[in-house]
Amino acid sequence: MLFTSDNASGAAPEILAALAQANDAGAMPYGNDPLTARVEERVREIFEAPEAKVYLVSTGTAANALALACLCPPWAQIYCQTKAHVEWDECNAPEFYTGGAKLTLIAGEGARIDAQGLRDAIAASAPVGVHNAQKGCVSITQATELGAVYTVEQLAEIGAIAREAGIPVHMDGTRFANAVVRLNASPAEMTWKAGIDILCLGATKNGAMAAEAVILFDPAMAWEFELRRKRGGHLFSKMRFVAAQMDAYLTDGLWLRLAGHANAMADRLAAGVEAAGATVHQARGANMVFARFSATQHQRLQAAGALYYPWAQGDDAAHPGHVSVRLVCSHTTEVEEVDRFCALLAA
Amino acid sequence: MLFTSDNASGAAPEILAALAQANDAGAMPYGNDPLTARVEERVREIFEAPEAKVYLVSTGTAANALALACLCPPWAQIYCQTKAHVEWDECNAPEFYTGGAKLTLIAGEGARIDAQGLRDAIAASAPVGVHNAQKGCVSITQATELGAVYTVEQLAEIGAIAREAGIPVHMDGTRFANAVVRLNASPAEMTWKAGIDILCLGATKNGAMAAEAVILFDPAMAWEFELRRKRGGHLFSKMRFVAAQMDAYLTDGLWLRLAGHANAMADRLAAGVEAAGATVHQARGANMVFARFSATQHQRLQAAGALYYPWAQGDDAAHPGHVSVRLVCSHTTEVEEVDRFCALLAA
Amino acid sequence: MLFTSDNASGAAPEILAALAQANDAGAMPYGNDPLTARVEERVREIFEAPEAKVYLVSTGTAANALALACLCPPWAQIYCQTKAHVEWDECNAPEFYTGGAKLTLIAGEGARIDAQGLRDAIAASAPVGVHNAQKGCVSITQATELGAVYTVEQLAEIGAIAREAGIPVHMDGTRFANAVVRLNASPAEMTWKAGIDILCLGATKNGAMAAEAVILFDPAMAWEFELRRKRGGHLFSKMRFVAAQMDAYLTDGLWLRLAGHANAMADRLAAGVEAAGATVHQARGANMVFARFSATQHQRLQAAGALYYPWAQGDDAAHPGHVSVRLVCSHTTEVEEVDRFCALLAA
Amino acid sequence: MLFTSDNASGAAPEILAALAQANDAGAMPYGNDPLTARVEERVREIFEAPEAKVYLVSTGTAANALALACLCPPWAQIYCQTKAHVEWDECNAPEFYTGGAKLTLIAGEGARIDAQGLRDAIAASAPVGVHNAQKGCVSITQATELGAVYTVEQLAEIGAIAREAGIPVHMDGTRFANAVVRLNASPAEMTWKAGIDILCLGATKNGAMAAEAVILFDPAMAWEFELRRKRGGHLFSKMRFVAAQMDAYLTDGLWLRLAGHANAMADRLAAGVEAAGATVHQARGANMVFARFSATQHQRLQAAGALYYPWAQGDDAAHPGHVSVRLVCSHTTEVEEVDRFCALLAA
Repeated sequence: MLFTSDNASGAAPEILAALAQANDAGAMPYGNDPLTARVEERVREIFEAPEAKVYLVSTGTAANALALACLCPPWAQIYCQTKAHVEWDECNAPEFYTGGAKLTLIAGEGARIDAQGLRDAIAASAPVGVHNAQKGCVSITQATELGAVYTVEQLAEIGAIAREAGIPVHMDGTRFANAVVRLNASPAEMTWKAGIDILCLGATKNGAMAAEAVILFDPAMAWEFELRRKRGGHLFSKMRFVAAQMDAYLTDGLWLRLAGHANAMADRLAAGVEAAGATVHQARGANMVFARFSATQHQRLQAAGALYYPWAQGDDAAHPGHVSVRLVCSHTTEVEEVDRFCALLAA
Repeated sequence: MLFTSDNASGAAPEILAALAQANDAGAMPYGNDPLTARVEERVREIFEAPEAKVYLVSTGTAANALALACLCPPWAQIYCQTKAHVEWDECNAPEFYTGGAKLTLIAGEGARIDAQGLRDAIAASAPVGVHNAQKGCVSITQATELGAVYTVEQLAEIGAIAREAGIPVHMDGTRFANAVVRLNASPAEMTWKAGIDILCLGATKNGAMAAEAVILFDPAMAWEFELRRKRGGHLFSKMRFVAAQMDAYLTDGLWLRLAGHANAMADRLAAGVEAAGATVHQARGANMVFARFSATQHQRLQAAGALYYPWAQGDDAAHPGHVSVRLVCSHTTEVEEVDRFCALLAA
Repeated sequence: MLFTSDNASGAAPEILAALAQANDAGAMPYGNDPLTARVEERVREIFEAPEAKVYLVSTGTAANALALACLCPPWAQIYCQTKAHVEWDECNAPEFYTGGAKLTLIAGEGARIDAQGLRDAIAASAPVGVHNAQKGCVSITQATELGAVYTVEQLAEIGAIAREAGIPVHMDGTRFANAVVRLNASPAEMTWKAGIDILCLGATKNGAMAAEAVILFDPAMAWEFELRRKRGGHLFSKMRFVAAQMDAYLTDGLWLRLAGHANAMADRLAAGVEAAGATVHQARGANMVFARFSATQHQRLQAAGALYYPWAQGDDAAHPGHVSVRLVCSHTTEVEEVDRFCALLAA
Repeated sequence: MLFTSDNASGAAPEILAALAQANDAGAMPYGNDPLTARVEERVREIFEAPEAKVYLVSTGTAANALALACLCPPWAQIYCQTKAHVEWDECNAPEFYTGGAKLTLIAGEGARIDAQGLRDAIAASAPVGVHNAQKGCVSITQATELGAVYTVEQLAEIGAIAREAGIPVHMDGTRFANAVVRLNASPAEMTWKAGIDILCLGATKNGAMAAEAVILFDPAMAWEFELRRKRGGHLFSKMRFVAAQMDAYLTDGLWLRLAGHANAMADRLAAGVEAAGATVHQARGANMVFARFSATQHQRLQAAGALYYPWAQGDDAAHPGHVSVRLVCSHTTEVEEVDRFCALLAA
């Protein structure tokens, strides 16, 4: 009963096999190999973006920070959600890679950026010329840190606001696959067609060991990205081993199959939690469930070895004797552990 | 009728005379001169801080950013007020000089940091170890950007919260002289006795041409400060000309006399504005008046050549047909221009 | 006949097997897993350093840049060799991670730092106080970029010079295993006993996919290193997969066995090259051979599909009609390809 | 007998008077004043550059570092002379402002960059793509740190090399006025006509208190420069006081008159030194004399209160019992102190 995070899961067998296979052939280093080229081809096809440039790194923080550095000069601000990973969980990596840009926080339900909040924040920027942090870029997360999913319409609205302000949009897609499955929309509609300039497409949390693809829909940024990646120490000499993971991930729909499983397990878990009389928070979307348990329920689960994190909610004070928690399902979550968890909760 | 900002004022005659006098004697460069040494002595005496180290720079942004860089590592956060100059008016200079620290914003009345808000923000920091921006330092402004003044008790409370959290406190004292006059407290009580580690003592807005003193109450930081100042391009070869300004400023109470005049003019202006039936916003403190005029009043003043800036307030929407404004008095504001302004307003 | 670089080699079977094995067990993320702990234990034992802290990253550039940032403040200089990887092959990553430190270049035979050159460079530093870049740290590479190896005595001399100057020493150990095998000295003697403060121990070029260990012999720097690693985007969520590689690498002497093979192949190659009448440059040491071929030899090898890089030498102008080249052997170099290469050369 | 540096001199009377005059008129802050506009007009006229943008700062280090940051991205290298001020005397300010660019050193007589050395250094850059520091910009000093002056032809050669390499050129003109007087060439010929993109025109060492003009011959860089200046804390609120200095400096040829005097005093000093039998080093050019005195001469001068700095020369070891020194003349150097100095030397 492991619900701490999808990063506690292992690698999918297909991905492990791809690593072994990649090892059999020698290859030129630093991405000058056929597997890396094939990843780019696969991404271009899946995203209907024949000009896109695709670069591999191995952590989400690196992907996000490098992407933001390409989109936002040091004297500007990144408009992001109050609960965004780039704000909360990257130890100032965006500030480091941009050379000192500022993250300006915008509220919104389900850790989505509220469109009007974005308009207001942009309007408040740079009223007195050189003195203020300038308008830089927008950063959104799909699916969000609270497991919610932006609809295609919501994405397009964010994109339109940014375009009107003359600034680009970054998407943290650590759990992009989970969002694709949930929305049943095309990757193109969810990204460049909605105005996204760079997508950081995660694989690590969804079946890879360590592989993230940074997709530049505008190839004009490619060379700068390459220099920034190298300067950040994120250019792998044996790139083919990262590429092998991403290649397998994107082959024959593996990425969607794995995400679909995680989402389904989260749905099953949410239904079980509610059936057990516990509250489920937040508009559900991807592979996470935010819930509130009674202290008794919590103790029973802990005693049985269930693993998950407490996760504070704004209204916790009104519910003494209860614990708010985050439960994350992954590609390796099993039906039995979900059911056993729910049974313990209901007992 | 010049009320745009105290930085639109000129230099006090005593300060201009000091420059001419400093020119008559040759001197070693880079602060190795008697005037610079005398400034340090004056500051130590006025602040009852015989160990303090004092460094001169020529803009408030430089003073603040260099001070914050000494107090906050790049992976940490600076707790400051939502309307702080370091957040709004320095084009990411704090982020630049710290190497990418994050400014975490705390609300509060009159642009003062709310003590409970500070406690909450500190408590929310670094719950998951290395992932979050760490606790760095607190930054407050005295008098604030809205002209309010922290009481000695309020300062001590902020200082105690910081000390308990194990982090230092920076004070942006661009208008520190105005606050001293208003509080009628000792500079020591308002700074190191209340837990302030570095004060940026402004002179530029209050009678100098370009002179700010960074006062390190803990001399252990001195060498690092000196290196940061040089690396930032803020070490003057002919330092004696900056020192001459600050020396004259601190001699025979000139700094308090100038600030006292500015405060008195603001009091007279506030009284006149209210007498004319216009609203005065904010708890008043130093040399600024925030007010709301009817459109008619505003047009009449503008037509008469009065200079001031519009300044949005949170409740403007509820007052259609009105204009919110900021009026700043300085050491050169004259009684007649205040009275003429108020007469126009009341007409 | 693949002699371009040891980074063109694949992974050792033991390391691939370790990855698969690591996948079978779930684990807490970010290095809070038993494999990561075991790596630290192995390093402590091998280096006779029971207090050392050990951190894993996945590129040599990241390891070096993070280590240097811990050892050198932004206003100081890193004394390194003219041909050092940190100077030539990291696209300003050391400058980026240190926040703008300066690399001061010191010549020396075989890409080793000349001891007297180091003394002179340190003596030339900071003569006029705050104006100059300060003394920061020394950085050396073992084995060097030209395949040479510092003797234990040479290391101790560098260490003593640094200690006398009050500055620490970083060792880029991308090919440290090759140096250990060549010197037949203990890892402790070659590092902390000689005054090395941080060793970046490479595995990637010698049998891993992507794994480098940063060894802090002084544990006082540990927390800062952890924050810098996270801020640089180099903290892996599924750390156990990096740890598995390093653990296998250090188990049962695999690292030395692989390096020993590479060194032996280079020895065989050097002997064959000389037997064929071609010149071998540089004091040989580790797994590289720098040689000069006639144009005819070069063309014959190229035509047969041999892969290697041209590598300019200082005296090339005196040898028209010749080509200087670098040949690198790895853990996967085979006797037959060496012999075939030499036979072609001699033909 | 003050020959330590031209920064030990005071301000010219015309400049002091301009400050007093500037104080009489109120003015909008941050350079939105008539004096700042007039400085730009004067520079455009003197340099025959009607499109140039001109920005004022108050230290040479700030001017150079801000200019270099506009010309060189963080992953590139600045080609400069081994003895350049940007390398030796700015405590890594160029590295700080560029975000970590690398200074690549090129030798040459008289602290001038050797043209062939520059060609070689550029040719050695970026041979392996993303791995190396990229080509950034060239930085030269006119007059140089050793008092030499580039001829117009030498400047044009440097400019042509840079243009061919596709990189811009920065000129540190701390003593530009001294060079203009010496060459008797037009400021336009010595700058943009020779391929200079940004000139940092110094006034501080030649009669101002603290005033340097950064001249962007390509106005396309203007907005970025303004943001960088503000972010660096170098935007003065009371800009008119810096502008007043520069305006007076450039009015009626004051700048050339002051520099002409300093040069003439240096010529007289050099002649006297040689007449006294002491050696004068370096190709002379501007207002500095590098000489070698016997220990007896040195002691006699010191005893008489002469002030100057020892300055090591490459061949000092061959002249035991002697001292190499630097002597700098300024706009305030008097004939009598030169003659008295030479008389003491000859005694």
